[in-house]
Order: sequence, then structure tokens, then C-alpha cells
Amino acid sequence: MTGNYTVLTGGVGGAKLVDGLYRTVAPDRLTAIVNTGDDFHHYGLAISPDIDTLLYTLAEKSNTELGWGRADESWNFMAALRELGGENWFNLGDGDMALHILRTAALGNGKSLTQVTDDFVRRWNLAVKVLPMTNDRISTWVDTAGGPLEFQRYFVEKRCEPVVESIRFEGSADAQPTPDALKAINDCEVIIIAPSNPWLSIDPILSMPSLRSALIKSEAPVILVSPLVRGTSVKGPTAKLMGELGLEINNRSIAAHYEGLLDGIIIHEGDDVPESIPVFETNTLMVNIQDRCNLAKVTLNHAKSLIS
Amino acid sequence: MTGNYTVLTGGVGGAKLVDGLYRTVAPDRLTAIVNTGDDFHHYGLAISPDIDTLLYTLAEKSNTELGWGRADESWNFMAALRELGGENWFNLGDGDMALHILRTAALGNGKSLTQVTDDFVRRWNLAVKVLPMTNDRISTWVDTAGGPLEFQRYFVEKRCEPVVESIRFEGSADAQPTPDALKAINDCEVIIIAPSNPWLSIDPILSMPSLRSALIKSEAPVILVSPLVRGTSVKGPTAKLMGELGLEINNRSIAAHYEGLLDGIIIHEGDDVPESIPVFETNTLMVNIQDRCNLAKVTLNHAKSLIS
Repeated sequence: MTGNYTVLTGGVGGAKLVDGLYRTVAPDRLTAIVNTGDDFHHYGLAISPDIDTLLYTLAEKSNTELGWGRADESWNFMAALRELGGENWFNLGDGDMALHILRTAALGNGKSLTQVTDDFVRRWNLAVKVLPMTNDRISTWVDTAGGPLEFQRYFVEKRCEPVVESIRFEGSADAQPTPDALKAINDCEVIIIAPSNPWLSIDPILSMPSLRSALIKSEAPVILVSPLVRGTSVKGPTAKLMGELGLEINNRSIAAHYEGLLDGIIIHEGDDVPESIPVFETNTLMVNIQDRCNLAKVTLNHAKSLIS
Repeated sequence: MTGNYTVLTGGVGGAKLVDGLYRTVAPDRLTAIVNTGDDFHHYGLAISPDIDTLLYTLAEKSNTELGWGRADESWNFMAALRELGGENWFNLGDGDMALHILRTAALGNGKSLTQVTDDFVRRWNLAVKVLPMTNDRISTWVDTAGGPLEFQRYFVEKRCEPVVESIRFEGSADAQPTPDALKAINDCEVIIIAPSNPWLSIDPILSMPSLRSALIKSEAPVILVSPLVRGTSVKGPTAKLMGELGLEINNRSIAAHYEGLLDGIIIHEGDDVPESIPVFETNTLMVNIQDRCNLAKVTLNHAKSLIS
């Protein structure tokens, strides 16, 4: 028993569960391995949307009105940019800009994304480990009827409207998970896959062969929290995407997608039950902080019940 | 008679006179050649303080309370940066950031500083030509008792407090004035040197041998507006610097500094009169827009009186 807990996570839903775990276990025992397939450069700035969403959530700085970005944000940069004819499709808040400017400068000075992210974690006194899945470049691309789209173009500019035909993770054949990420998988008591989009947020992490192998070999149970609630996604394009990929929109499809990886699954109470693996039903809809903590506790208890 | 007017200018005082000229002559006949010795990189951003001061002034977006930067500015980027332990000595306003981000990206895409600046001018519908003195790098360095300081470190971080021993323009031996800047000098009716700091704002322009030669060879009269008013500088370190360089703080020293270049000088009424060149006295203190326009008109009239 190491007492360490490791979570694989992507965007907003994943961040909420990590926050619940952060409030539930000793924070220095918790490691989040975060999707960087969404990362991209915009106006020369290195932007890591999923890392930032998690940092803002844990630091209680997330913008709960918008559902993304920083609380108490102002938008004078964007207004001035628009006036000068700049690209308008990706919103950069004035305060949010600080993360991008500092990250871009630090990467330019030779720091790794792992180091840069750790600097932010320390500055905000978050005892948790927040680890990018890799320090290499993996870029999620979505092939649509209208042609290929880089993830943020699909997700932000096109608001997930194009019909998805397939998804690719450019660079994943050559990318390596960070040593810290592998260590977090190899040296923990429970591995949780957050209720993030399996195809867009978790698959980029699993696209690195050595990380996937580490998960399979790990002695710790791997528990998924299903992203579906009452047969649809809470937020984001999971359900729409499943339909476009020709899948039934239910927990059986989700469990099948992760076949060979999972030791258990947490599903929303009353939803369809996959038969292949141990299932625990609970309320997985995280409306408030208490929901996050409850789901974290149930997930950990279920995971521990699987440890023989 | 080309009907064209060309001004050499630096920071705030110069921008005010250019604004007066802009309101006085046909704007498409006016060209400002702007000091870029203050330009520097901060957090990877290409910052051109004197160009931006002029653009903000002409576009009526300058922050008259602060005396620099953009009107109606917010500071959430700086607040977030401070919270993350970022460097605090150079203030970047939220709206101001748009110019730096767009310039940095455009330069990165292979545009010249001349092109980037022209894009801003067009976006803001300013009919005037605003030309960086060079597309090459010239960096003003100030040698002080405490060691060498890059200009912005001296000017902003140290608030001009260190005693200046000498001033250098790194890169000026290899830098070329832009063809547009040379053309503006060769093809105009009057050349005005704005009441900017001769040593810190105008000398970087003159440090390029071919630009200085063009000024000397030009048939157009070269008229200086003295930066001194009642024996001191209106704003900025001109008077303090003159003392540190062992000069008398008066118009004779200013005229001597520009020896061989000037055909006339405008001085503040009642101030000391250099004997070597034609002098015209007027109110050179620009408190309001009317002052700017009056000084512009007087300067042009005096210049035209010198055309034989």
C-alpha cells in the first residue's frame, strides 16, 4: 500500500473529480496525468487548455459561469485585438494570459512542460502533482466531413459541430510519457480514469504505447468513472461523437472502448450496466463541491474493494 | 516643393509634436521616423515603446493620466503575473498586450517592423506614415556607475536614477535605415527633429551613418524643436542626463550637440539663445491639443522661412 492515487484526466469533468479527490485524500498523495493533445500555439503562445482547466479548478480560480478560463476575468486584450483585426475565434482572458506568457517564455528558456506546470502548482500552493502526459508534442486532429481540424479548431472555433469521421494523435508514435507520469502509474494504490471524453481527452494519453502498457501491467486497479449520465454527456461532445462514430451511446460502449484496461467502472445510478467488469452505481453528476467529494470517496472505496 | 514633411521622433514629447503636425498638414504628407533603440524583448514579446506611444497618441488612445500606455487600460494580466511570481518591473496593460502579441507573431511570420507598424496605422485609419528608423536591431545601452543597463532597465526599472557615464547604440554599425525612412528624408520640404531626448531618443536614429549623411545632404531645412523649457526638461531625464554628461543645461548645448545638422531651432520664449543658427522663440510647452497645433504651425512657418 503506497497510499498514492493517480488519475488520468482531460477537461472540465475530469478536473471536477480531481478536485474531489484533492479534497478527500492527502493532496501530496495525489497525481493527475493530464491530456496535452489539446495543446496548441496561438499567436506564438504555448497554450495547454486541460492543464490550465485543472490548475484553475484546484486553485479555486475557475470561471464557473463560462465553464472555462479564469474567474473574475476581463477581456480588454481581446477587445484591442479585435480592433486591430486579430483572430477572434479563441478567447484569451487578460488574467489567463499570464499562464500562457510565463509558460511560453519558460519553454523557450529550455524548461520542460512538466517543470513549468510544477512551477505553477507550487506558486499556487497546490500540494497535488499535476503532470502533463508527455513533454513531447502530441496533437489531436479530428477528421471531419469537411476535412481535418486541429482539436481547438474543432472544439472552440467550430463548437464541435462538424461530423467526426476519425481522430488522430499526431506525434504519439514518437512521443514518450514523462518519467514522472510512468512512475505515478507504477507506484500507486489506485488508478482512476476521470469522466473525461474517452476519445478526445483520454485516448491521447493512451496513444503512447509505453503508457498504455504501464497501465495494463500495473498491479493497482484501474477504475473508470463513466462520462455518461442518463445516456448522454454532461457537457461537451462525448454523446454526439459516439453517435457519429457509430456507437451506441451507453456505458457498455464506454466499457468496450477501454477493454483490457479496466478493473471496475463507476456509473450513474440507474444507467445501463456493462456486464464485463465490476460496476458500482452512484450519483456521478457533479453539480457542487459536495458532489465532487462524494464521487471521489465512492470511487476510492470501490477501487479499494477490488484490491485483493 | 514636394509638400512632404518628415519628423524624427522618440517618446512622449515627440509624439505630441507629431500629433500637432498631423492635425495641421495633410496627414498623408507627414512621415514620422521613430526611434527603435528602446525596443526590447520581454517575456518573448517584441516591444517597441516609442512606436506605440506615437500610435496611441495619434489614434487618441494614449493614457494621459499615466503619461504612457493605453487609455482606459486594465491590469489583470500584471496582477495574475505577479501572483505567479513573474517579473514585475515592466508594466504590460491588458489592451496594450494586443500590439505586442500581434507584432511578435507578425515578425515571427517574417514581416518587417515597417510592415507591422504600417498594418497598425491602417487598422486605426491614421493617414500618416509611421516608420521605424530601421528593421534591424539597434539597442540603446546606458553605461552607469553601477554597470551597463539596457535602456528599459535604466528608464523604467531604475527610473533614470543611475548616473549615466556614456550611451551606446549596439548594432548601429551594421544596421541600415529603412529605404522608406531614407526616402522620407530625401523627398521632403522640411525635416523636423522633435523635442525628444537628443542623447537617448534622437541619437539612436542618427547613429546610422547613412541616415545622418542623408540629413546633411538633404536640401530641405532641418529644424530642431528644443526639448528644454525654462532650462529644464518637461518630462524625462534630458536635463539630469546633460548634467551627468558634464554639459550646461541650455539650448546652446543642445544646438552644439546637433552641430552640422541644423538649419534652425525653435526654443521656448525667453530661454537662452544659441548664436550659431537661426532661432525662433515661441511657447514650446505642449499642455493641450491647441499647444501642439500652435507649435506645429510655428515650426513649419519658421522652417519655410529658411527655404530660399
